[in-house]
This record gives sequence, C-alpha cells and structure tokens, in this order.
Amino acid sequence: MDRDQVTGLALAVSSSLFIGTSYIIKKKGLRRASATGLRAGAGGFTYLRDPVWWLGLMTMVVGELANFAAYAFAPAMLVTPLGSLSIIVSAIFAHIMLNEKLNIFGMTGCLECIAGSTIIVLHVPEEIPLHSVLEVWEHAMQPGFLMYALAAVGGSVYLAWVVAPKHGATNIFVCLAICSLIGSLTVVSCKGLGIAIKLTVEGSTQLWYPQTYLFAMIVAACVVTQMNYLNKSLDLFNTAIVSPLYYVMFTSFTILASLIMFQNPQSWWQITSEVCGFLTVVGGTFLLHTTKDMEVSWSSISSLARRQQTGGTHNSKKDDASRELLPLVATGEQS
Amino acid sequence: MDRDQVTGLALAVSSSLFIGTSYIIKKKGLRRASATGLRAGAGGFTYLRDPVWWLGLMTMVVGELANFAAYAFAPAMLVTPLGSLSIIVSAIFAHIMLNEKLNIFGMTGCLECIAGSTIIVLHVPEEIPLHSVLEVWEHAMQPGFLMYALAAVGGSVYLAWVVAPKHGATNIFVCLAICSLIGSLTVVSCKGLGIAIKLTVEGSTQLWYPQTYLFAMIVAACVVTQMNYLNKSLDLFNTAIVSPLYYVMFTSFTILASLIMFQNPQSWWQITSEVCGFLTVVGGTFLLHTTKDMEVSWSSISSLARRQQTGGTHNSKKDDASRELLPLVATGEQS
Repeated sequence: MDRDQVTGLALAVSSSLFIGTSYIIKKKGLRRASATGLRAGAGGFTYLRDPVWWLGLMTMVVGELANFAAYAFAPAMLVTPLGSLSIIVSAIFAHIMLNEKLNIFGMTGCLECIAGSTIIVLHVPEEIPLHSVLEVWEHAMQPGFLMYALAAVGGSVYLAWVVAPKHGATNIFVCLAICSLIGSLTVVSCKGLGIAIKLTVEGSTQLWYPQTYLFAMIVAACVVTQMNYLNKSLDLFNTAIVSPLYYVMFTSFTILASLIMFQNPQSWWQITSEVCGFLTVVGGTFLLHTTKDMEVSWSSISSLARRQQTGGTHNSKKDDASRELLPLVATGEQS
Repeated sequence: MDRDQVTGLALAVSSSLFIGTSYIIKKKGLRRASATGLRAGAGGFTYLRDPVWWLGLMTMVVGELANFAAYAFAPAMLVTPLGSLSIIVSAIFAHIMLNEKLNIFGMTGCLECIAGSTIIVLHVPEEIPLHSVLEVWEHAMQPGFLMYALAAVGGSVYLAWVVAPKHGATNIFVCLAICSLIGSLTVVSCKGLGIAIKLTVEGSTQLWYPQTYLFAMIVAACVVTQMNYLNKSLDLFNTAIVSPLYYVMFTSFTILASLIMFQNPQSWWQITSEVCGFLTVVGGTFLLHTTKDMEVSWSSISSLARRQQTGGTHNSKKDDASRELLPLVATGEQS
C-alpha cells in the first residue's frame, strides 16, 4: 500500500466513524426534542430547534465529505465496501449510549463485518496513478465503460418509467436497482471530481478543464437521483431489509463500474479473496439488521452451556449410540 | 500450491463430505431402527442390525481415514479448519434428505463458513518439505515444541485431576480444554505417522525407525483421551454449544501447535487474512448451531420486504425527519 492508499483508507474509516456516530447524535436530538414537543414521527419539527440534532447533521456532513475525499485517494473497491463499518459503529454506540442492547447475533454480525472488511482492505488492488482529470476522463471514455454507463442510465430510465409505476411499491428491488445503478455512476464521477480537487489543492490546477465541471454536474445529478430513490425505498419498505440489500447492490455495481473503468490488474486469488470478504460483510450486515429487534439474551445462549436435562425432550440424546465413533475432525457433531 | 497441497486439500474436502454425509446416513438408520424396535435414545440396540446405520458408520470411517491422510500431504493449518465444511455438508443434506429445514440464519452461517474456509485455503502457508519421519521427529524435539507439548499434557492432567472433579459437570470449558489440548497433539502425531506411511508407500520405508512406532502410540493414546473427554462434554452439555466451542478451541490449539512445530514463514498480512477467515468460520459455525431449532421462515423475513404499514408502531418511521440528508455511503441507515 502506498501513501495515497493509506490516506484513503484513513479517510474511509473516519468517514464511517462520523456517519455511524451521526445516527446516534441525531437520535439523541430527536429524543430530546420529542420530550418537549411533538415527535418527528408524528409530524413535529421541534427537533429543528435542537442543537444536538444539528450537531448530528453536521457530523454526517463531515462524514460524507471524508467519504468523498477518500475516493480521490484510494480505489472505489476499497472505499465503498468499508461503508459497512458505519453500521458497526452505529450499532456499538447505540448499545453503549442509547441503551439499545446488541444481542449475540448482532455481535456475531459485527465480527463478520469487521473480518470481511479486513479481508477486503488486505486484498485491494493497486490504484493506477492519475496525474490529471483528463486521464480520468480518458478512462471514462473507453468503449467498455461507455457501454456500462449507457446500460446503467438506460436501465434506470426503463425501471423508473416502465417498471416502477406498476411494481415500485410492491417490489423492493425496483427502487433499489435504480438507486444502485445510478450510485455506481455517482462514485465514479465523485472519483473524477475528487481527483480534480486533490490535484488542484496540490498545485496542479484542473480548473481550466471543462471535464472538471462536467464531473461536478454528473455528481450533482446522480446524487439527487440516488437520494430520491433511496428515500422512496426507505419510505415504502422496512429499513432492516432495505439497508443490507442496498449495501449489496450498491457495492456490487460500484465494484463492477470501477473494474470496467480502471481495469486494475488482479490475480484470480486476489479477486476470490475480495469476493469472500464481501460475502462475509453481506452476511454480517444481514445478520445485524434482521436480528436487531430479536429477543435474544446472553442468558438464553449461555443456558445452552449449562448442564443439559437428562431424560428431557432434547434430541441430542437421541443419537447417543452413534457416538461410539466420534470424528476427530472438529466438525461439530450434528445429532 | 504444489501437488501435495492440492492432494491434501482434496482429501480434506472429501473427508468433510464423507463425515457430513455419515451423520445423515446414520440418522436414517436410527430412524429405520426405531420404527421396528426400541429407539437408541431409550436404550435400544435395534440399530446394530440395521445395514443403513452400518453404512453410515463405514462412511464416517472412510472420512476419518481421508482426514488422517490429508495431514500427511497438507499443513495442519489447512486441514483442521476445513473440518467445518462437514457441518455445512451435514446441514445441507439434512435440509434435503431428512426434511430438517435450514432457516435463513443457517444459510447465512453456511455462507460465512464457506467464505471463511476459502480465505483460509487461499492463504495457507507453504509446507516445509519432509523427507523422513526423522525430520518430523527433529521438529518435535525442538525446545519450543517440547515446552508446548509439556504444557499441553501438564495442563490436561491438572484439569482432569484437580479441576474436573469440582467443575467439570458445570463448566463447559473444562472437558473441552482437555479435549482440545490433547487434540492438538493428536494432529501433530497424526502428521508424523501419516508422513511415515506416505513415505513408506512411496518406496522409502520408514518401518525401521522406532519414531514411526512412537508416533503410532502417541496417536492411539491421544485419540482415546480426546474421544473420552469429547464424549463427556457431549453427554453433559448441549451439542449446539459444544460443537462451535470445540471447533474454535481445537482448531486454535492445533494451529498454535503447528506454528510452534514447523515455524512456517508467513507475512503479517497472510496471518491476518487467515485469522479473519478463521473468525468468519467461527461466526458461521456459531450461527448455524444456535439458530438450528429457531422458528424462522423465509416468509417472516420476506414480509420485511413487503410494503410497510403506515401509521403503525414501526419505529423506522420515527426518524423520517433525519432522512433529508441521507448518506451516500452504503451504510444501511440505523433508525
């Protein structure tokens, strides 16, 4: 890993810290506000006068800026999957500060997310060095990427105009697909704009190139579309299922777009490791979200570790006879 | 990966296939037997006359032999963690053949186990080439490994004689620690014996060395002890918690013993990747076992994906106000 990648990694991780914390601070603000006026869920706007809520909003803005900056330094294949860390930060802080206890499955989910993210970080491809916004533009103008961009925009338009009116409110994948396809273009254009700003700050101004402004306009258009459809999804469906699905789809399309655009050379085993890391994070995210409201206490798990009742209905007694020859392999006997 | 490692990998995977399948076949046999006589759990022995049960037992023996042979070809750091694959095989076959439906969390657990195992396989260290059982013996006679072996045996004796009489029946870790400490010595001595047999078969006979017979005796003593304490654990505690704990402890001690004995040179990121893969498998195993009897249907999960009730008690509506600025990062909003 070179210096730029380390900077990008640090920015991506701190972005997740800020965004994860912002949920907690905003929720603290909403709770304070609901204590004195009508709560937000019931249509109240007291929270707008609460400084804590504003602090939360600012924290999120800082996080988003750090995330944007991370794209200028490190490959999208590193930055995007690390977004999942903010879920862990948020879950852990909610556990400590909001007294929303994380159950054992949530903790397992956190463990999986951390292990998977680490795998991704360890196997990230080397970034192709870019010295001008024109070079990013050249990458974007390759026939392969143009075809991807065209397919993403065309697919989104088709989904939004033809499919969404009929199935958008009942099928969770419609809005999320639009969101993720456009999101992959957001990331790629963020990368262009981010590199332009980074180079300008470093002294090699990119402000004379029209491409810089074009990237800025694409970023704005993509962000608005993406936000619009993400809001729609969250409004129509349960957050517990929207979040992991959005994570999977958004990250997959972003990695695909990034692979087509930059064609980073990677060995098959590097790609396999990344895919395994990604699948691990997906499983962890799914677990964390779906078991959030589950009533699982440490005691119900640790009771399993207590002496089992003999003569009870427990079916692990059933196969006693088959234990005469037990596997040496640490298999975990399935009785 | 050289040819030997590929052979070892193939043996380890097929061992898991055989052992995983053997549970299913034996259970089929027990079910058939209980239909005609007293069931095993109630003290019956009808199953001993059932050919299906015997087929299951044979399948397990073949699996154990393949596992033993795998140690002769590939590092213990590869073979031992792959034992978890038999849980997946068993869970999937039980789903298909015994109608023991795997729930969505079980499937997530399987996914995690496969992803983690793949990571481990991809990062396994190169095996030090061994040309004689004397070389294995030399490795075992290094002061570092001798100290480990002494500590393992001493610790086990202390646990068995001093701790177990008082706490063995209430603390799950006592029997499992003995089992895992001795298990790590089983693996190391299996490796010695396995290599001796492999070399003998290849034409370079090791039968004149007393070390070969010493390894065979150590294997026998360790296997008996390990089986004894594993049986005790399974008898006293719930399989759902014994299995993942045994997997973690046995694999950890085996990897430790193997590292001390062979001191395979590894880079820090290779070790980190292996640890992450191992943690992923541990999480998956835990999930698979603890959620086995949980009543989670696809429909209860997919109902989350349906249109949510407006005006309901669902708390994801609470933070609507905070959605005006949503993260671009695929975070999964925590409301």
